[in-house]
Amino acid sequence: MANSVQLLALDDFPLVSPGDDLAALLLDCLGSNQLCLQAGDVLVLAQKIVSKAEGRYVRLADVQPSPAARELARRADKDPRQAELVLQESREVLRVRPGVVIVEHRNGYVMANAGIDKSNIENSPEDPTVLLLPDDPDQSAASLRRQLGQRSGVYPQVIINDSVGRAWRNGTVGMAIGTAGLQPTHNQVGERDLFGNVLEVTEPAVADELAAAASLVMGQAAEGCPVVLVRGLKLSEASVGSQSLLRERHMDMFR
Amino acid sequence: MANSVQLLALDDFPLVSPGDDLAALLLDCLGSNQLCLQAGDVLVLAQKIVSKAEGRYVRLADVQPSPAARELARRADKDPRQAELVLQESREVLRVRPGVVIVEHRNGYVMANAGIDKSNIENSPEDPTVLLLPDDPDQSAASLRRQLGQRSGVYPQVIINDSVGRAWRNGTVGMAIGTAGLQPTHNQVGERDLFGNVLEVTEPAVADELAAAASLVMGQAAEGCPVVLVRGLKLSEASVGSQSLLRERHMDMFR
Repeated sequence: MANSVQLLALDDFPLVSPGDDLAALLLDCLGSNQLCLQAGDVLVLAQKIVSKAEGRYVRLADVQPSPAARELARRADKDPRQAELVLQESREVLRVRPGVVIVEHRNGYVMANAGIDKSNIENSPEDPTVLLLPDDPDQSAASLRRQLGQRSGVYPQVIINDSVGRAWRNGTVGMAIGTAGLQPTHNQVGERDLFGNVLEVTEPAVADELAAAASLVMGQAAEGCPVVLVRGLKLSEASVGSQSLLRERHMDMFR
Repeated sequence: MANSVQLLALDDFPLVSPGDDLAALLLDCLGSNQLCLQAGDVLVLAQKIVSKAEGRYVRLADVQPSPAARELARRADKDPRQAELVLQESREVLRVRPGVVIVEHRNGYVMANAGIDKSNIENSPEDPTVLLLPDDPDQSAASLRRQLGQRSGVYPQVIINDSVGRAWRNGTVGMAIGTAGLQPTHNQVGERDLFGNVLEVTEPAVADELAAAASLVMGQAAEGCPVVLVRGLKLSEASVGSQSLLRERHMDMFR
């Protein structure tokens, strides 16, 4: 029989507000979906709900753009206050074009606008607010894993994902910006293939593949589905975060 | 109840030889896995079995390297015959380092070594053979979709995937190199978010997310599992291939 992996998009996850107890919301929602955490489960959470729980909102009216931000805003055709936040959230600006700013986020991911988002938050045109990425998504994932484990007895593997653009290809894909409890890349170097040849460079980025799989299901829900339970994989446990997914700068040929 | 998408990794898919009827092998294997194609099913096939069925093997002994290939081989520390095949399969060489050649494949994907592979093929060290990508993976996917539909009455959506490296991040992820029957990117521009704001730039690359999801399950099987049936998604039907996934060169800031 075919080996089956299930992607379960939780129904009716509530809107999240600053200070909300995400672990409690998750356990409640799993219950109302008639699901219990099982050993080996992976929970993938959209970045947005983690940022909201952590209160990562910024009112643009409270932002004072620096001269560098004004210059970036001019080149990118953006609001100088948004440009200021992009600079604050980044280590380096890699590319600028009207409408596009690609940066290395201070946590190391390469992405547009440092992941700062205006969609799916309550907004008024007169007093716009934006939402930053979680301060430390690996830390957020680890904390959720611990709390879920303490309260339910089962420690799920946790991934926080975001939708990002890519070099060379159109469209966005889900990417892991924070992980807990799993090995983000599966090192197969030295293992053997079907014919006994030693594999040389095969290292699947399983956390990113999971983030993409979950994103597919999140995006299918008309009403927005920020939590996906992945069941049926057997991933290696590990007490590391997602840093191994970041290519070291001197190894990166596309900056 | 949670909305469920299943990734079904087919057991015991046979080794594929040049000239094999892939549609027949797929229908047989689905049957022995006690599965029938259903409306809305997506079949994801590893590039390798498509290449093998199409006989895309090349014996290196039959390759005569050009001067350009010898020069590339020297810079990349590769076999000049392999370098010759990489050049034949590419439009342009983008980056070279010892051990690494990143090209734009003649079909437009940016990848290492033009996707030419030595693993998972029967090989003797004295007379090495490599496997090229399918000649036209969109065409291969369309042909499979048609044959499966004619024989089973159900026309599945088909994706051919390959594992590729990325700019900025470590590890490989599954990517769609050929598609049939589905819209590879889901254009949400102009749709509204949870709070009624118009979405500006959200266009998930669903074909790549599916390719990544399937790759995750393919890689989990110790014995190699080249076919994954994805059930429970409702993707838009479309009679296009995967070309819309390729960013136009003048829009690409990372070449």
